[in-house]
Amino acid sequence: MSKTDNHTYRLIIHCPDKVGIVAAVSQFIADHSGWLLESSYHADPDSDWFFMRNEIRASSLSLSLDEFRSQFAALAINYDMRWAIYDSMQPQRVVLLASHASHCLADLLHRWHSGELDCKIPCVISNHENLRSMVEWHDIPFKYVPVNPHNKAPAFAEMEAIIDSYHADTVVLARYMQIIPPEMCAKYKDRMINIHHSFLPSFIGANPYSKAYERGVKLVGATSHYVTGDLDEGPIIDQDVVRVGHSHSEEDLVRLGRDVEKLVLARALRNHLENRVIVHGHKTVVFE
Amino acid sequence: MSKTDNHTYRLIIHCPDKVGIVAAVSQFIADHSGWLLESSYHADPDSDWFFMRNEIRASSLSLSLDEFRSQFAALAINYDMRWAIYDSMQPQRVVLLASHASHCLADLLHRWHSGELDCKIPCVISNHENLRSMVEWHDIPFKYVPVNPHNKAPAFAEMEAIIDSYHADTVVLARYMQIIPPEMCAKYKDRMINIHHSFLPSFIGANPYSKAYERGVKLVGATSHYVTGDLDEGPIIDQDVVRVGHSHSEEDLVRLGRDVEKLVLARALRNHLENRVIVHGHKTVVFE
Amino acid sequence: MSKTDNHTYRLIIHCPDKVGIVAAVSQFIADHSGWLLESSYHADPDSDWFFMRNEIRASSLSLSLDEFRSQFAALAINYDMRWAIYDSMQPQRVVLLASHASHCLADLLHRWHSGELDCKIPCVISNHENLRSMVEWHDIPFKYVPVNPHNKAPAFAEMEAIIDSYHADTVVLARYMQIIPPEMCAKYKDRMINIHHSFLPSFIGANPYSKAYERGVKLVGATSHYVTGDLDEGPIIDQDVVRVGHSHSEEDLVRLGRDVEKLVLARALRNHLENRVIVHGHKTVVFE
Amino acid sequence: MSKTDNHTYRLIIHCPDKVGIVAAVSQFIADHSGWLLESSYHADPDSDWFFMRNEIRASSLSLSLDEFRSQFAALAINYDMRWAIYDSMQPQRVVLLASHASHCLADLLHRWHSGELDCKIPCVISNHENLRSMVEWHDIPFKYVPVNPHNKAPAFAEMEAIIDSYHADTVVLARYMQIIPPEMCAKYKDRMINIHHSFLPSFIGANPYSKAYERGVKLVGATSHYVTGDLDEGPIIDQDVVRVGHSHSEEDLVRLGRDVEKLVLARALRNHLENRVIVHGHKTVVFE
Repeated sequence: MSKTDNHTYRLIIHCPDKVGIVAAVSQFIADHSGWLLESSYHADPDSDWFFMRNEIRASSLSLSLDEFRSQFAALAINYDMRWAIYDSMQPQRVVLLASHASHCLADLLHRWHSGELDCKIPCVISNHENLRSMVEWHDIPFKYVPVNPHNKAPAFAEMEAIIDSYHADTVVLARYMQIIPPEMCAKYKDRMINIHHSFLPSFIGANPYSKAYERGVKLVGATSHYVTGDLDEGPIIDQDVVRVGHSHSEEDLVRLGRDVEKLVLARALRNHLENRVIVHGHKTVVFE
Repeated sequence: MSKTDNHTYRLIIHCPDKVGIVAAVSQFIADHSGWLLESSYHADPDSDWFFMRNEIRASSLSLSLDEFRSQFAALAINYDMRWAIYDSMQPQRVVLLASHASHCLADLLHRWHSGELDCKIPCVISNHENLRSMVEWHDIPFKYVPVNPHNKAPAFAEMEAIIDSYHADTVVLARYMQIIPPEMCAKYKDRMINIHHSFLPSFIGANPYSKAYERGVKLVGATSHYVTGDLDEGPIIDQDVVRVGHSHSEEDLVRLGRDVEKLVLARALRNHLENRVIVHGHKTVVFE
Repeated sequence: MSKTDNHTYRLIIHCPDKVGIVAAVSQFIADHSGWLLESSYHADPDSDWFFMRNEIRASSLSLSLDEFRSQFAALAINYDMRWAIYDSMQPQRVVLLASHASHCLADLLHRWHSGELDCKIPCVISNHENLRSMVEWHDIPFKYVPVNPHNKAPAFAEMEAIIDSYHADTVVLARYMQIIPPEMCAKYKDRMINIHHSFLPSFIGANPYSKAYERGVKLVGATSHYVTGDLDEGPIIDQDVVRVGHSHSEEDLVRLGRDVEKLVLARALRNHLENRVIVHGHKTVVFE
Repeated sequence: MSKTDNHTYRLIIHCPDKVGIVAAVSQFIADHSGWLLESSYHADPDSDWFFMRNEIRASSLSLSLDEFRSQFAALAINYDMRWAIYDSMQPQRVVLLASHASHCLADLLHRWHSGELDCKIPCVISNHENLRSMVEWHDIPFKYVPVNPHNKAPAFAEMEAIIDSYHADTVVLARYMQIIPPEMCAKYKDRMINIHHSFLPSFIGANPYSKAYERGVKLVGATSHYVTGDLDEGPIIDQDVVRVGHSHSEEDLVRLGRDVEKLVLARALRNHLENRVIVHGHKTVVFE
């Protein structure tokens, strides 16, 4: 990307595949002097579905974002497009949910604080108090929402109210260990990201490192995915693994896994924030 | 390992853990002038079980292998040891089983032919004829044993007879796609090695690449394990993965996976042949 | 890619970057009913240079390849394009050069033989006789061209004559250990591929594993690159590494490195054969 | 390691290789009821040098650490051993040096704060003020020692005085960008650890990511090593790499490299703190 001009628009499209889509879209962009910094596409042969991401230098366009939207709509309708255009100068508002474990939260906060992660973090919500000081050092509000194990609904209602009060675009479960109720999954569909501490679909559910240790696997991993009502079955954004061996205890697996969790969640969130991830059914297209 | 003197003995021990085992074993070796080229231990804290592998320069020992065996037996009994000593000049006899796919077989044969894999391959058995010429070019007998899908027992009986006629130490399923009967699994316990084309325990059973493609995983893998009566549940020797993405078709997953399968099977077999793998319950200790 | 229709044309373009190239090219393709199976772009911000690769289903096009060429030429001149269109049904002719070591050659021959590598191999040239039988088993002519260390020119002249007699599109140095004369590098510019047994630019020149062992590195690697007159300085196509440690001897590094060499060379060649690699100065664009 | 009893002694030995060392050492340990939790060794065939690390459960030993030391000394002298025994309850004092970049420092501080890194951090020294608040949030003194580019000696003298006032066992250059004077390298030999932001020996010296970008490599890496008077030539403790491609800018290389730097430095420091690293000439033995 240009070093002197980082302001871009990201045009994201998906629709039934047919001849001429690329021509139509790129002609529209060129007709308005749009300079393409990146352009990616994918055609899924199973569903005959087309996906496209264009990153356009904002200053090159001869029309405003609103004008772009209204004029492009006419074209989009011809191709039955699902589409959106995002302004890189309008970073997303991301609410982070955490439990007791600090590693993913600390990692994301540091990336954000050092300018690597381009978003706003209006607040962090946790069902434990132990990370308050770390969060507040970053000048981010810390919301303590304890979860009553015998009646969880009030806590989730409170969390939802907080998330909505900040107009969050995205919710990240940074090792938040509670199962999210189905209605909440549905409400934040394709914009609630979880990190699961196993290489899915291995070891779905609780205690994956314990299961991995018991099974004697030679790699442990982590999976970042969009949250759906089916536990650990949501569309996968990213995964990675680390090598382990017989000399590693279950605690070692947990420790080594933490580094993979941090990295996989950060990569997934970055791609999500740059509008590089498109959900299609229960799978994702990730334009890296 | 010494470049000028590759003849070694490998002393493999496992037994209940207690103080003094290493001292007793290493004193025994030292008392007979044994020069240790490698020595590895592991203590499993869950089962309080001890594992040891010593690689001794053969020429340094002041007693013969037979004398070693009879004298060490007296020591071993005190510690309730399961033990064996192997002579590196007596390479194992390895029978390879293959089906139609050639990649693992070709890889193992080339490693063997170029001297990288230290074993004898007395024959290759297959339920297809297509790889005969490749095998025979290596001057290895090719045994065609077709499997009647409605009555598989005669084929397995014939395979067992062939394997035993060659006094095979180890059997390798180099993408042999038939399920091995339980009695045969039991007979070759801890010496029949399979390569499964997924990162176990993900995608157990048939068509793992198809399942991986459907699930939208971002890594596909392969697992080498000892064969047991429980399908794909045997002790894992090695695993590895390769990164895939939305642009890869199911055929691409199969293609990329082949390279992982070859590598994982070759590594596992090499470690097995060098007596680096000890099975403990449904897990392995691998002294790499 | 479609499973039922693998016949494609690959349109490769690079030129000075400006607004409208994608539109012009994709409009041209759409105007002739071309169905895009893949399309990739890259804009290099340092040189303001644009790169594009389009893979078009052949059967969808309403004009012949010759008609495409003549009509596209008119468009191409407007953008000062360097361009070519390749027919997937016209696989390249690839001459392999080998020395004594067999691993890369055996790997490429197996991939070719099993249909994974889409090319013709009209002959293999070697300065040793030891691989003749392996090559001839594949029904490929083996040309023995010994190199007189005191007068190498005649051997290279003979090799060049052989390569040209087969109208080779690409030459692969599959661990061919002789330094190629500058004129020959120039003649096969951007179509002669070498595998260097180190992670370049570490350990340029002879005996890289020995140097790696001496330095005590914790990873060893391999690099595939186009050959130029500057030894080991050509444009890099692919690289990879494998972890090593203090317990590995120099021989172990050589052995572990072989697997990396095979994989890196095979990946690089595959991308080259699918017209996915564009050389730009001393770097490459690889549309994977 | 035992979950209920983490107090261990680590006996580290290296000496000329000869028959009987393992027996003598393990007999000594057994004679005093020492329970081995881990034992590793390595014999270097080039220098005929022997290396050993034993981790002994402290509570099992029938003698005190002082008694162990005085009695073991008698044995050690027979084998010309360089040796030491470390108490896991006496964590090392580690002084961190940083410059402007925060990623390695933040990563190490979080690992320390969450209990993953077993050491004391008596202070952080930096030639910039920007990280003061982050350090002080961890209740660690922050020492600002600016470096006058025209006369660096006073700054290094001040740093040395600070380091020594805290009786530091180990000094870590967490992306401290100044070249350390030779006398200081000599003073902290084998206990001053640097992270270099390239896969050494590629791209020695300044601006390695810029050089990597110019060269068009397909992997970038990081190297942790002990600091010596020869710039970037010290004994390597750990290295790793990450895949990059033509679409990555130099800034992307810097960003992706940061994650490798953090991980490699943290792994190296952990192994150093657990007395798993032995320097031998310009190489290391790392008992992982």
